[in-house]
Amino acid sequence: MQDWHFSERARKLTSSAIREILKVTERPEVISFAGGLPSPATFPVAEMRAAAEKVLTESPHAALQYSATEGFAPLRDWVAHRYSCDGLSLSADNVLITTGSQQALDLLGKIFIDTGSRVLVEAPSYLGALQSFSLFEPQYVSVPTDEHGLLPEALTDDLVAGARFLYAMPNFQNPTGRRLPLERRQALAALAVRHGLPIIEDDPYGELDYEGKRLPSLLSMAPEHVIHMGSFSKVLAPGLRLGYIIAPKTVILKLVQAKQAADLHTPSLVQRIAYEVVKDGFLDRHIPAIRTLYATQAKAMLDALSRHMPAGASWNTPAGGMFIWLTLPEGIDTMALLEQAVAQNVAFVPGAPFYAGTPVKHTLRLSFVTVPPEKIEIGVARLGKLIADVLQPRAA
Amino acid sequence: MQDWHFSERARKLTSSAIREILKVTERPEVISFAGGLPSPATFPVAEMRAAAEKVLTESPHAALQYSATEGFAPLRDWVAHRYSCDGLSLSADNVLITTGSQQALDLLGKIFIDTGSRVLVEAPSYLGALQSFSLFEPQYVSVPTDEHGLLPEALTDDLVAGARFLYAMPNFQNPTGRRLPLERRQALAALAVRHGLPIIEDDPYGELDYEGKRLPSLLSMAPEHVIHMGSFSKVLAPGLRLGYIIAPKTVILKLVQAKQAADLHTPSLVQRIAYEVVKDGFLDRHIPAIRTLYATQAKAMLDALSRHMPAGASWNTPAGGMFIWLTLPEGIDTMALLEQAVAQNVAFVPGAPFYAGTPVKHTLRLSFVTVPPEKIEIGVARLGKLIADVLQPRAA
Repeated sequence: MQDWHFSERARKLTSSAIREILKVTERPEVISFAGGLPSPATFPVAEMRAAAEKVLTESPHAALQYSATEGFAPLRDWVAHRYSCDGLSLSADNVLITTGSQQALDLLGKIFIDTGSRVLVEAPSYLGALQSFSLFEPQYVSVPTDEHGLLPEALTDDLVAGARFLYAMPNFQNPTGRRLPLERRQALAALAVRHGLPIIEDDPYGELDYEGKRLPSLLSMAPEHVIHMGSFSKVLAPGLRLGYIIAPKTVILKLVQAKQAADLHTPSLVQRIAYEVVKDGFLDRHIPAIRTLYATQAKAMLDALSRHMPAGASWNTPAGGMFIWLTLPEGIDTMALLEQAVAQNVAFVPGAPFYAGTPVKHTLRLSFVTVPPEKIEIGVARLGKLIADVLQPRAA
Repeated sequence: MQDWHFSERARKLTSSAIREILKVTERPEVISFAGGLPSPATFPVAEMRAAAEKVLTESPHAALQYSATEGFAPLRDWVAHRYSCDGLSLSADNVLITTGSQQALDLLGKIFIDTGSRVLVEAPSYLGALQSFSLFEPQYVSVPTDEHGLLPEALTDDLVAGARFLYAMPNFQNPTGRRLPLERRQALAALAVRHGLPIIEDDPYGELDYEGKRLPSLLSMAPEHVIHMGSFSKVLAPGLRLGYIIAPKTVILKLVQAKQAADLHTPSLVQRIAYEVVKDGFLDRHIPAIRTLYATQAKAMLDALSRHMPAGASWNTPAGGMFIWLTLPEGIDTMALLEQAVAQNVAFVPGAPFYAGTPVKHTLRLSFVTVPPEKIEIGVARLGKLIADVLQPRAA
C-alpha cells in the first residue's frame, strides 16, 4: 500500500461532522432547513433551454473551444454595465468571470493569504469562505457583530493594521440573514479608505431584498478598496457555477494569472448560455418573482417560529435572502441538538462551524426557501417541541 | 490608491512574455503553430445540441441545481467502467470529476505540495502543470529525457527519496509529442511500487494514437501508486472544462475536500450533457475520426519540415497527439526567434518555459492540428527560411 504524504494544509482538511449527519437529511421523510439551496421553482428552465439551443446553433464552435481566462467578453461587459451607477464607472477590465463564487474565494485566498497572514472575518462568517481561506493558513481575527451585523467600531487601528483584508457579507449574510445598515456601510467604506484596508464584499443575496429597496454596496462607496463578489447562483441557477469578481485592474490581473492555473477558464458553453438569458433585461423581470416567493417562505417560517418556539429562543426577521438565525438559551449545544433533531426527521445547520474564533454554540441557521409552507409549520413545530424538551429538565 | 499586499506566491506570478508575443497571433494573417487547441472540426456539435436539449427537457432542475462535489454519479460510473480492464477494477469511488484537467493539477498541488516539497518533473514538462504546482512553491527536480521520453534509470534512490510525486505525461507529451515505450512504463511502475513513489499520470492525449495501438497506462500497472488524470477536452470539446482523476479512495477523499473549497462542484449542466453524449459508446465511434484527421495533419507538417528545414534542425515523428518538438542547432534562442517569426506572420511556442530547471533554449513546440495543410506548408516554409537565415551568418 502506498503511504500518501499529504501537504500540511491537506492534513488539516477533515470530513465535516455536520456533513456526515446531514447526509441522512436526503431521506424524503426529513424536513430539512439545513440546505443552502435556492428554490428550483425559480430556475428559468424554458429560457435556459432556448439559450442553449441558440448558442449551440449560432456559435457552437466558440462555445465548445478553449476561451479567454478573463471570461466571455460580452458577459464581462454586461456585469460592468449592471454595476456602473452613481459615479461608479466600470469596464470589462474590472471584471473576472469565475466558476461560481466559491472559486472567487479560492483565488482571493491564493493571491492575498500567506501562512499566518491576518484576515478579518465577521463572527459568524460564511463557512465556505472560511474553508477556502483556511487552505492558505491565515490567522483569523473575528470581528464582533450584533443583530444588525458587523460592528465597524470594533475595527480598531490595532486590528486593522497589517490585515490582508476584511471579508464581509453585508446583504442577508449567510448564516445570519442580517443586512448591514447604511451608516455602518459608510463607516466601513471610510475605514477602508483611511487605513488602506481591502474589503472583500461577498454579495450573492443582494438582489433578494423582499421589498426591492437595496442599500448601496461597499463597492459603490470605496471602489478603489473593495473587491466585490457576485453570483448567478441565486438569481439564475447554481448548477451553472457562474460568478464574478469586480475589482481594480491591478487585482483582476493577479486573479487572472491565478485562475489560469486553477481551471484555465469557466466553461465557455455555460458563460454563453447565461449571457444569452440575461442580456436583454431578463433578471429585472425574473428577480421580483424570486423575492416574492422567498418573502412568502420567510413569513411562513417566522409565523411558525412565533407559534412553536419556547421562551428563551430568539431570531431575526430577515429583510431578504434565504436564512434566519436562531439563538437558543446558553448551554444548549446545537451540534448535539442536531442529532436529536435528525432522529425526529427535522434538520438545521448548527452555528458553531460558522465561527473562525470561539463559537457561540447555542445558535443555528434555518433555511426556509425550499420547504413548502405546510412542511415548514410541521418542521418548526417538531423543532420547537424538541428545544422545549431539552430546556425542560434545565428549568426543573 | 490602495496599496495591495499580495501573497508571496502571487508576487511570483508574472505575465508570460510568450503570451504577450502570441497575442498578435490572433491576427488572421498569422499562421500559428503555437496553439494547444484541438481542431473545432472534431467537436460533435449535433450530439451536444441534442444532449443539451434532452438534459434541459428531462432533468432541468437537477441540471441547474447544486450537486455533489464528487461529480455526477453516472458519469463517475462511466469513467470507472471505461478504465476497468486487465485486472484493474475501479468503482465510482475512485473517480473525481474536475473542472478540466487544469483543476486536477491545482487540487493535486494543493493536497501534496508544501513549500519546498520535492516534486519530480520531466525535462521538459507541461507548462500548465508547472504553473499550477508552482503556486504551492515546490522544489522541482527535473528528470532527464531522451527522444523516447523520461529515462527511468535517472530516477536514482537519492532523487526519489522524499519526493512528493513524479508528474509525467507518458502519451504524446505536451510539449514534445513523445510516447513513453512499454519497457520504460514497466520500469516506472516497478519503481513506484518499490519506493512508494506516487506518480501523477496526466493523459489528455492517450486516445489520440494515430494507429489505434494504445500502450498500457501506468495506472493499469500500479493502481495503488498512480493518480491518473483524464480529460474530455481532446475527445469531446475543451470549452466544457471537463476532466477527471482516477485514484485510490484515500486520495479521492482529500481531493473532494479540496475541490469543495475550490468550486463546490463542476457545473451540473455540463456534466450531464457530456454524459448524455458519451454514455452509449459515442467516443468509440468518434475518436477514430479525430485520429485520422490529426494523423493527416501531422503528415502534412512532417512533409513540410522535411522540405523546408535547414540542416541542423531535428524533430520527432509523433505516433499520436497534437505536437512536434523541434530542436535547432545550439546557440539559437527560440524566444528571440519567436519575435522574428511573428514579424513574418508565423508563430510557435519556444521550448524554454517548459523546463522547470535549466532550459534548453534551442527547442520549440509546433502544433499542427488546427492549421489547414496548405497553410502548414507556407508557415513551415517561412519558418525554415527564417532559421536558415539565422544560421547563415553563423556559418559564414
